[in-house]
Amino acid sequence: MEVDRERLREDVERNGEFGRVETQEGRGRTNRSGTEANRRARQYFVERLEDAGLEVRVDAVGNVVGRWTPESADPDAKPVAAGSHLDSVPEGGIFDGPLGTYGALEAVRTMRELGIEPERPLVVVSFTEEEGGRFGSGMLGSSVATGRRSVEEALALEDAEGVTLEDALEEIGFRGEGRLNAAGWDAWLELHVEQGTRLESVDVPVGIVSDITGITHCSVTIEGEANHAGATPMGERTDALAAASEFVRDVERAAEEAVASESEGAVATVGSLSVAPNATNVVPGRVDCGVDVRDVDHGLMDALVDRARTSLARLERVRGVDCTLAREFDVEPAAMAPRCRTAAREAAEADGITTMELYSGAAHDSMRIARVTDAGLLFAPSREGISHNPREWTDWNDCATATSVLCGTLARLAGATFEGDS
Amino acid sequence: MEVDRERLREDVERNGEFGRVETQEGRGRTNRSGTEANRRARQYFVERLEDAGLEVRVDAVGNVVGRWTPESADPDAKPVAAGSHLDSVPEGGIFDGPLGTYGALEAVRTMRELGIEPERPLVVVSFTEEEGGRFGSGMLGSSVATGRRSVEEALALEDAEGVTLEDALEEIGFRGEGRLNAAGWDAWLELHVEQGTRLESVDVPVGIVSDITGITHCSVTIEGEANHAGATPMGERTDALAAASEFVRDVERAAEEAVASESEGAVATVGSLSVAPNATNVVPGRVDCGVDVRDVDHGLMDALVDRARTSLARLERVRGVDCTLAREFDVEPAAMAPRCRTAAREAAEADGITTMELYSGAAHDSMRIARVTDAGLLFAPSREGISHNPREWTDWNDCATATSVLCGTLARLAGATFEGDS
Repeated sequence: MEVDRERLREDVERNGEFGRVETQEGRGRTNRSGTEANRRARQYFVERLEDAGLEVRVDAVGNVVGRWTPESADPDAKPVAAGSHLDSVPEGGIFDGPLGTYGALEAVRTMRELGIEPERPLVVVSFTEEEGGRFGSGMLGSSVATGRRSVEEALALEDAEGVTLEDALEEIGFRGEGRLNAAGWDAWLELHVEQGTRLESVDVPVGIVSDITGITHCSVTIEGEANHAGATPMGERTDALAAASEFVRDVERAAEEAVASESEGAVATVGSLSVAPNATNVVPGRVDCGVDVRDVDHGLMDALVDRARTSLARLERVRGVDCTLAREFDVEPAAMAPRCRTAAREAAEADGITTMELYSGAAHDSMRIARVTDAGLLFAPSREGISHNPREWTDWNDCATATSVLCGTLARLAGATFEGDS
Repeated sequence: MEVDRERLREDVERNGEFGRVETQEGRGRTNRSGTEANRRARQYFVERLEDAGLEVRVDAVGNVVGRWTPESADPDAKPVAAGSHLDSVPEGGIFDGPLGTYGALEAVRTMRELGIEPERPLVVVSFTEEEGGRFGSGMLGSSVATGRRSVEEALALEDAEGVTLEDALEEIGFRGEGRLNAAGWDAWLELHVEQGTRLESVDVPVGIVSDITGITHCSVTIEGEANHAGATPMGERTDALAAASEFVRDVERAAEEAVASESEGAVATVGSLSVAPNATNVVPGRVDCGVDVRDVDHGLMDALVDRARTSLARLERVRGVDCTLAREFDVEPAAMAPRCRTAAREAAEADGITTMELYSGAAHDSMRIARVTDAGLLFAPSREGISHNPREWTDWNDCATATSVLCGTLARLAGATFEGDS
């Protein structure tokens, strides 16, 4: 089921104009919830849904939904849904989110043009603030659509300047009514760029995700004693940064050992670290750092956090520092539904497209949706694995190929029948 | 030659009122060059010099000098000088600087009262901005007085808001005339708090400094590749922070080995470190850090910097990061003059005061002055070694004892004769 590559490309490129950023490394975009760029991106999406004959609805937290109820479908049947998000990180790429949003629309347009007759309605979705860039909460729209967070709670979230999500959505005219309910969907499918190099490294155009890894964030403090770098002999120091350096290596080593022995995809990262007083001539008195741990096995994630705690306990004994570790954020791994994966594999095979199964180390709205209905996630290759960066790139042919597989998968999940199917 | 403890205490405490800071940990002060607090501190000092009958002069960069030319002295003989500084770091202590400044004045007052008859004039000095807190250049006043920096160059220095030293001094009425010339002094003596724990640990009230360690600051960058913490497998990362952590440990280890084998006082510190992009869920792409290296042997300092370079070269090979190291600041160690040390030892012995020889890991104006004339440096004990902090404290008896030794040393250097001297 070949989609229209140029039509898809035009939509993704036009969407990339909203909040466009030009850098030496390439063209990107900054599209934060509730900004003018975000209003224009949403408005263009609504117009494109309407152009395709879909019935548009905006829910109370700004999730945008276009519904196609074909004559062949039972209008009361649970719909099959697909989509992604339109917001971006600051100076992000043009594909992360929009490829899945416009890919879902392109899939529906293609089904209609090919005269496919699904038994279920189709809905195309753009979730509010997947990136968490403004209101501090990633997967915001999908967390409301899956009942994890109430509409009221979400609308009351504030940005750094104290503006609520509600006011920001009112401002751009996208504070709608009601709550999109993902639990009412028969199935969900999302297409996204991989943000890794596994597809590129084996030259496969489409990935079928088996699991999305869980994510834990730990906040760690290491307190030593700030002191004069000249007047404090080496043997009399309690250097918080020297201790933190051992901790960073211990965290890295724990993940490397887990990769070698248990789980290829385990990762642990000390991504943020700050030093106080942070002056070249003062022995560091305090370090705060943030640790990110992910794996498809939640038990292994627990084990990696335990390794981090063990490292800190040793540093307290050996270096006399005082340490704390708070596990502030924890999302369990999410398995994608076997029937979604099977449908995707069959759709690809029917078109002679090679696929591979892989896990997703990045979080996606699909992670939330997998808790309330059958969910599937497809990946298109990312050039050099780069994302959240203007250098993010996916070849337009790969975009079209992955969207074709998305189209075939949705058609199958929605109960369309194909030649050769039993 | 016993000084007046209460008079000294009153001066140091009164000086501590200017820019007074109350914290939970104690009483401190913030006294930056050219501020109102600094004007008041200078004004009070001028008044106290005049009260003691000294002739006051302020030079072009705000160095304040009080001169006593006793009848016993040849007015054309090179004077013996003593003093320190009145500025402080933000939320610094009340002793760091003022003890030496008012200690020098108290020594002169005591000599006059005891009828000591020196052969040389005495000068009491307060140098501008020793701490480098506002115009970014430590030992500012003494660098001009020793000809290392011209008056014009110094006056053109700008603070973070673009205000020049010249304007700041004009503003508070302390832009004087001419240049204080330290090369014209027969000898120089400074009393300072130790900022370390060596005197306290052996319960000795006065330290005689043999050498001030040299100081090198290196600016280091480590560039890796920022990437998604979830989507980038452990084996495909170029994590700048993980590399920097090995570097921090290597620097620490190099200094520890030097202490064990070559020089007890060698220190190397990574005091500052910043990470980019510094987000918990992003593999660090770049680390900038600052390294402080000190020892009394400049050759050993070079060797420690070489060890740092070797560490970075290894990290480039093993981890694929790109590193740079720039040695941006280098002051050679300064030996204190044997005749100043001898005079101090004799003065202490004459009063039955125990002393010990030690090195100074902290920089002082004496470091500059040692390049142009014979210099000596005395230490009073710092409680728990704490300085640059409101918790900085030196017992008033120790302040008086060290000032008594300062007084006796100055009298000897200025050619006063004592019973029992040959």
